[in-house]
Amino acid sequence: MPNDAPQTKRAATEAYGARVVEYAPEETTREEIASELQAEHDYILIPPFDHADVIAGQGTAALELLEEVKTLNMLLVPCGGGGLLSGCAIAAKGMDAHCRVIGIEPALADDATKSFHSGTLHTVTNPPTIADGTRTSSLGELTFPLLLQHVDDMKTVSEDAIKDAVKFLFYRMKLVVEPSGALGLAALMSGTVTPNGKVGIIISGGNIDAAMMIEILNS
Amino acid sequence: MPNDAPQTKRAATEAYGARVVEYAPEETTREEIASELQAEHDYILIPPFDHADVIAGQGTAALELLEEVKTLNMLLVPCGGGGLLSGCAIAAKGMDAHCRVIGIEPALADDATKSFHSGTLHTVTNPPTIADGTRTSSLGELTFPLLLQHVDDMKTVSEDAIKDAVKFLFYRMKLVVEPSGALGLAALMSGTVTPNGKVGIIISGGNIDAAMMIEILNS
Repeated sequence: MPNDAPQTKRAATEAYGARVVEYAPEETTREEIASELQAEHDYILIPPFDHADVIAGQGTAALELLEEVKTLNMLLVPCGGGGLLSGCAIAAKGMDAHCRVIGIEPALADDATKSFHSGTLHTVTNPPTIADGTRTSSLGELTFPLLLQHVDDMKTVSEDAIKDAVKFLFYRMKLVVEPSGALGLAALMSGTVTPNGKVGIIISGGNIDAAMMIEILNS
Repeated sequence: MPNDAPQTKRAATEAYGARVVEYAPEETTREEIASELQAEHDYILIPPFDHADVIAGQGTAALELLEEVKTLNMLLVPCGGGGLLSGCAIAAKGMDAHCRVIGIEPALADDATKSFHSGTLHTVTNPPTIADGTRTSSLGELTFPLLLQHVDDMKTVSEDAIKDAVKFLFYRMKLVVEPSGALGLAALMSGTVTPNGKVGIIISGGNIDAAMMIEILNS
């Protein structure tokens, strides 16, 4: 985990029995650390998003939603590395070909939006967004082409819109959602996306520590 | 609403279209204010807990749980005025006669526990517990006899145990729960109640404002 990961994420991971290896994002990358550990211990790497099984697994979020609601005119999905988004797009289109799937990124970390609209992979280094789950440097080798093929559009939201969505989820839905997980709702609430018929939103991720939640509730 | 009600409770109530009438708990009571408004405007009073329909409605929380899990060895239910507790006890016993129903109160507001164990109605005035939903002065005319008839035991929990439960719900269940709503979990986590077989917990109430949640997360 990067040394700026939410404290609660680290504490919860350790409480579930894991050994956490910390690294400094400005000095090295997760991938380098993981390669070293693999070589040393014969570990098997489970990539966070750029793997067919991971993409399929994350897509079950949309699959379960569509199984329940049958049809959707629009589905809004947060986008970091693109695993959740591409998996959900494949699942949603498979269940309802007319469902328009839109990926949502923070404006401060809009590499995927730029990549989607230009057809060329853009990268970004440690973008300063509050949505720490989207601080991935770029889409993956698998997720980028899947996005181009299955996603209908990409939109970005402001930091304020993300905070407003986290607050709404806290006060009205009684849910603890991390900023990255609230991107879809942020797009709807801020008017970035115009709702059309029945709209689904994937809300995913509750790794938020007290300091971050307090900053948002006080904002 | 008392003038010390959570700000978010008031804001949400107004946003849903209600007109909120504020009162000072040290000067008058909700009941007096409501009587005046009834006389003046011909309003119909919906009591917060001491009415058969309200008790039955609150009991659907346990009914739905038992419909899903079929049997329970133990059910833990928060207790303020006793509406949720008596309703849940009736519903749980109706679904599974062997389910042991235990009401949980803050130790600082233990009027119902004293009433239950002594058979005589105890009252308490503005108890200083963090669990503001249990600051009712006593059980009601209906809920007190129903508790004696259908509830198996009453237990109390400390303020620290309540805070720990709210924190656990925030960090691990990703739920925003007010202190009163977390009483059942507080009893289980603090060892006040010894789990026996399959234990159900009614978690009810998310009226918590930023200041209170921040105080609890920082505790």
